[in-house]
Amino acid sequence: MKTENRSKSDIGMTPRRLEALVDGIFAIAMTLLVLSIDVPKIPADKVAAELPRYIRGLWPELSQYVLAFITLAAFWMGHHYRYRYIRRVDAGLLWINILALMFVALIPFTTELVGDYGEMPIAARLFEINMLLAGMAFCWQWLYATRHHYLVDDDLSDRIIKAGLMKELFIPALSVAGLVISCFSPSWSSSVYFLAPFLHHHNHRKRRGIRSD
Amino acid sequence: MKTENRSKSDIGMTPRRLEALVDGIFAIAMTLLVLSIDVPKIPADKVAAELPRYIRGLWPELSQYVLAFITLAAFWMGHHYRYRYIRRVDAGLLWINILALMFVALIPFTTELVGDYGEMPIAARLFEINMLLAGMAFCWQWLYATRHHYLVDDDLSDRIIKAGLMKELFIPALSVAGLVISCFSPSWSSSVYFLAPFLHHHNHRKRRGIRSD
Amino acid sequence: MKTENRSKSDIGMTPRRLEALVDGIFAIAMTLLVLSIDVPKIPADKVAAELPRYIRGLWPELSQYVLAFITLAAFWMGHHYRYRYIRRVDAGLLWINILALMFVALIPFTTELVGDYGEMPIAARLFEINMLLAGMAFCWQWLYATRHHYLVDDDLSDRIIKAGLMKELFIPALSVAGLVISCFSPSWSSSVYFLAPFLHHHNHRKRRGIRSD
Amino acid sequence: MKTENRSKSDIGMTPRRLEALVDGIFAIAMTLLVLSIDVPKIPADKVAAELPRYIRGLWPELSQYVLAFITLAAFWMGHHYRYRYIRRVDAGLLWINILALMFVALIPFTTELVGDYGEMPIAARLFEINMLLAGMAFCWQWLYATRHHYLVDDDLSDRIIKAGLMKELFIPALSVAGLVISCFSPSWSSSVYFLAPFLHHHNHRKRRGIRSD
Repeated sequence: MKTENRSKSDIGMTPRRLEALVDGIFAIAMTLLVLSIDVPKIPADKVAAELPRYIRGLWPELSQYVLAFITLAAFWMGHHYRYRYIRRVDAGLLWINILALMFVALIPFTTELVGDYGEMPIAARLFEINMLLAGMAFCWQWLYATRHHYLVDDDLSDRIIKAGLMKELFIPALSVAGLVISCFSPSWSSSVYFLAPFLHHHNHRKRRGIRSD
Repeated sequence: MKTENRSKSDIGMTPRRLEALVDGIFAIAMTLLVLSIDVPKIPADKVAAELPRYIRGLWPELSQYVLAFITLAAFWMGHHYRYRYIRRVDAGLLWINILALMFVALIPFTTELVGDYGEMPIAARLFEINMLLAGMAFCWQWLYATRHHYLVDDDLSDRIIKAGLMKELFIPALSVAGLVISCFSPSWSSSVYFLAPFLHHHNHRKRRGIRSD
Repeated sequence: MKTENRSKSDIGMTPRRLEALVDGIFAIAMTLLVLSIDVPKIPADKVAAELPRYIRGLWPELSQYVLAFITLAAFWMGHHYRYRYIRRVDAGLLWINILALMFVALIPFTTELVGDYGEMPIAARLFEINMLLAGMAFCWQWLYATRHHYLVDDDLSDRIIKAGLMKELFIPALSVAGLVISCFSPSWSSSVYFLAPFLHHHNHRKRRGIRSD
Repeated sequence: MKTENRSKSDIGMTPRRLEALVDGIFAIAMTLLVLSIDVPKIPADKVAAELPRYIRGLWPELSQYVLAFITLAAFWMGHHYRYRYIRRVDAGLLWINILALMFVALIPFTTELVGDYGEMPIAARLFEINMLLAGMAFCWQWLYATRHHYLVDDDLSDRIIKAGLMKELFIPALSVAGLVISCFSPSWSSSVYFLAPFLHHHNHRKRRGIRSD
């Protein structure tokens, strides 16, 4: 590992080491989502009648699981994208990262809440606020790292910095849309996150022409 | 890490980085399986009578734990096998992977369901459908990566591509067999997955003669 | 990996391999904290009335989650800082590490306890004792590794060794402060850990002038 | 990574890749142990009376947590020791490994059982049988890998092979001792595992004189 010579606040943390914690927390949060789907305790004499009804009623929990999973995957891909360009980690970036991970690790909780009480506007909104805060923390990271090319290469083009910012703003924008929709239809408001993979892919295709790395 | 020069949709994601997420999710899903085995709350005065009965009744949950564990291990080994040959990751492959992991992370849930209600055909079938969908997503990955040698080396032999496809189709085939058996005997249908390690080994032995890497 | 030639008790464990276990346990403990926030089972006819009340009552659990998360992050950063200088691992260091991780892995439990019963002095104190013991075990590690430059480079300056010790004593000191405050106000005593990131950052800024590595 | 040329059953799995799964499963199993300690739901008006009693009653669960944690740590260190010498992984070794991990991942369950019902011989015995089976599977791995120097270097000395076998037999021996003691005193039988770190360290010190690597 090459030592960075910048005299800026260097904490000797390499991006690679941070990625190990980040990958771990994402993998665990994504897998813990499954605990948001409860298996009921049905007395033996009622199983034949109740189990099929329970399984038919699984749909809200399963769809919430799916969209939390793909949004977390989109966040993880965003993190990977960001760290292609970030060369150094300082204490500020690290703590913004911890803040973002704190919201990421909370997602299994808000997912369970909306899976159980999705028809209540307040549950849907907590989920969307959770996603909004996580997205904004990741966005802050990018702004922090790229301002005056603080933690990125000096020759990183403004185009890539702006394209990165657009990417970062995408999930916060979906979350605001979800919050607005929740005023009319809480049950459907979280569905906006189904768009996460499509736009990521789209952004990517547009970016292809301007790659400079 | 050598940069790939292909002009195809390059997202700068290396197979190695993806493997970190994949290994994490497999390790966690395999370990979370244990949560599918509940420890009952028995009042102190009934422990002497109830605990031995509870332990004798553990068999369905334990055997379901075992076969889910070995099937996940077989999936993980399949993933490793696949990524020996996959040289690049693009957005399409990444999202097919996320889809597969979404079904993998769901397995602790369907395992708990069939451990608790294994005598109900619908529980056994949900487990088998879960495995079928995971297996098909992994199979799709292989087809996606090898079609026109898209993400593999240009000189990868057709024999290896076909042998890989056979491997990928193995757990989906077991799942279809399990679904058929579940019409006659739900409690036994999941036992087909006990074959997972044996056939993996068999495939491997057959492959030995045709290795070209 | 270069083999170390020292004739001291060499167990062939590289710091890198130990870090994999440590990163894993930290990532999991940080993510499991979310399980300390329970989602209640509210009967369908009472959801409209009870859910908003439950959500307003979440504050103690959420704030406990936040401060456990950032304290774990501070421990993790301390571990990283320590292992910048530790060159070898022997059986003694390994078992002190295991001891520290044992207290780290217990934090989700004491976090849940204080999230649920934070107004009880005994719950707050158990949390603070848990943090104190973890912090002291990490401190012990540093003393063990640096005494007579046992497991660090021979030319590591005394200044860095002392600065490291100050860092290690920081969370134990917060914990003692918390224990004292718990005699007057249990609900507020754990708030001392909100200082964790600030002082880490502060230590770091002071350290900048004396870096010798 | 240098490719191995041996014509033996090569599945292209490197020890390094296997270690990632193993480290993950150990880290998770060790952290999930904490879930074996339940936080009770005490009604608000009874907290002042019941919580201190609950905390005084935590001792069996906490001590079971501690000894499961250190035994898992000893297994993990044993795994590390083993893989210093194992150069290749074949399908047989992989599946023996999966078998061992299956018993490792089960330990949080048997730990919870004995933490809750430790005074019942059957609970203590299940825990000890779990440890015995895990230990025997790890022992089998070593025998499999070293027989005719199958997966180790050709010049690995018989002394190291035998010293390794002694190490592997240590936790199974403790487990047999625990099973015998459980006939007289179930509550104390698991305490044998408190010896795990001491003997590991002792073995290690004896080994120091005969290191040939």
